[in-house]
Amino acid sequence: MKSAGEFDLIEFIRTQQSVVRPDVLLGIGDDAAMLQAPADHALVMCSDTLNEGVHFPVGTDPEAIGWKSLAVNLSDLAAMGACPSWCLLNLCLPESDTRWLERFTNGFFELAAAHDVVLVGGDTTRGPLSISVTACGFVPRELALTRSGAKVGDDIWVSGTLGDAALALRRMLAGESVPAELMDALDRPTPRVALGSALRGFASSCIDVSDGVLQDLGHVCAASGLAAEVAGDWLPVSDAFDALAPREARLQLQSSGDDYELCFSAAPGYRNLLVDLAEKLDLRLTRIGSFTSGQGVHLTQAGRLSALEKRGHAHF
Amino acid sequence: MKSAGEFDLIEFIRTQQSVVRPDVLLGIGDDAAMLQAPADHALVMCSDTLNEGVHFPVGTDPEAIGWKSLAVNLSDLAAMGACPSWCLLNLCLPESDTRWLERFTNGFFELAAAHDVVLVGGDTTRGPLSISVTACGFVPRELALTRSGAKVGDDIWVSGTLGDAALALRRMLAGESVPAELMDALDRPTPRVALGSALRGFASSCIDVSDGVLQDLGHVCAASGLAAEVAGDWLPVSDAFDALAPREARLQLQSSGDDYELCFSAAPGYRNLLVDLAEKLDLRLTRIGSFTSGQGVHLTQAGRLSALEKRGHAHF
Repeated sequence: MKSAGEFDLIEFIRTQQSVVRPDVLLGIGDDAAMLQAPADHALVMCSDTLNEGVHFPVGTDPEAIGWKSLAVNLSDLAAMGACPSWCLLNLCLPESDTRWLERFTNGFFELAAAHDVVLVGGDTTRGPLSISVTACGFVPRELALTRSGAKVGDDIWVSGTLGDAALALRRMLAGESVPAELMDALDRPTPRVALGSALRGFASSCIDVSDGVLQDLGHVCAASGLAAEVAGDWLPVSDAFDALAPREARLQLQSSGDDYELCFSAAPGYRNLLVDLAEKLDLRLTRIGSFTSGQGVHLTQAGRLSALEKRGHAHF
Repeated sequence: MKSAGEFDLIEFIRTQQSVVRPDVLLGIGDDAAMLQAPADHALVMCSDTLNEGVHFPVGTDPEAIGWKSLAVNLSDLAAMGACPSWCLLNLCLPESDTRWLERFTNGFFELAAAHDVVLVGGDTTRGPLSISVTACGFVPRELALTRSGAKVGDDIWVSGTLGDAALALRRMLAGESVPAELMDALDRPTPRVALGSALRGFASSCIDVSDGVLQDLGHVCAASGLAAEVAGDWLPVSDAFDALAPREARLQLQSSGDDYELCFSAAPGYRNLLVDLAEKLDLRLTRIGSFTSGQGVHLTQAGRLSALEKRGHAHF
């Protein structure tokens, strides 16, 4: 049930795209897309929705919305060790605003092009601003990273820094200035696609910390049948975070989610390899704890060890 | 960024599902699903969104919403000749209402089970009621049905009857009684999956008439570089439609869309085969015109031939 206006929108979106891939047999413009998945890989697929006023504040830069709506999905693919390939975009717009759409597609296709991802389909509808993206990728089946493979004694690592996006949002909502470094973390998170691929074969588990590192580690614990001990003092922070985060709110901000870093486990024998990998990828990798027998996430903070309740970002 | 409430919703949805498939390597519960696509088929993928108040009236039976949100996507796969396999569900709910969700999943999984489709992922978020479904399926690459293959002289066929859903909606909004036959067409459309598969190899083009048969035929004309001549008097109607549709509104209702029938073309030599197929599938197949050289959709109505403007259902 599409109107002429919707066809114009779809045509506009289609023409903004520059990437082509030989495995797209039939892209936007028929009842469905037709794609050629590689025979020797598993297909990896995820879908996330961002709603205005829930996942991003009213007035967010449309470029940031476009970028982030794809980024959160590429982050999920990265957490499986998958290389992204295709995506679909379901865009619900309150009105047909070409200028907004141009900026949105700028952000969306900039990130898509950076990862050689082709938009192959989707839908445009009328309603409150909401963006659902479905992303697909591939991984050799036996090398996929999951939540269930952590072993007792494995180190727990996290990429990048934690809490920057949450601090940016907090300062923005409080009417305080937000340094560019923090704003970028909120608006244009970098999905750790290269890291995810590089971890294939030796990381024993992996998850993206979109829901907050402690909550997400809780999922790995449950799936792997283990406990996690995390050193709160080891959680990596950026210089901007270090300078601006109120002391009493640091842990809360660092475990609020919206970070899109990878939290993964690996046997201690891989420490040197991971130090080298961090250098090669120019990406901070920090060891924050280890898996033990038991259950739940236990946080040591200034010498104190306590079972921690989940602290994820709650918007449902 | 998921809260405990969202995890409960996902867990509830997960437990409502009964279908299992060996090609689902990893379903709901990790960062992404992992799937094994068959090497000798193309992957076919589509995604459609239904918004409350736009695509279905406020107060629609949740079972119908669940059914229809999947059906409209299976209809797109059918139009490619694809067999469905997996789907993802992005569900945006104004509140966490278990009774509503139970009825929604009843409808959704009833249709999914009928087509051996497994829900492998998605998202639940807070916001105005909106449902995005992404559906996947397979078709042998060389046998896929597209919009671009119609030839001069090919017959144009349509499955089922047209206008029932539009008439149901019109009567409902006018406060008039709606016979069950019409209500079913609106609430629980039957995606023509078996027909789509059966048309592989001899239908020269295919599209689902979700946007209205004349508008959708216009897309086939554009993609195939042809004109279509349609006999308005041949458009198939149900007995209920015939009895209740106001004479002056018939063509408008029949070309309003929301019908989810397949409109396809085939060389005249296949007429007998299609009559047999209709009998085998217990599904009405009606010849409504033919493709000619030229462009646009031309409608003959009571002897009158006129180029027709698009009359699709406009909600954007």
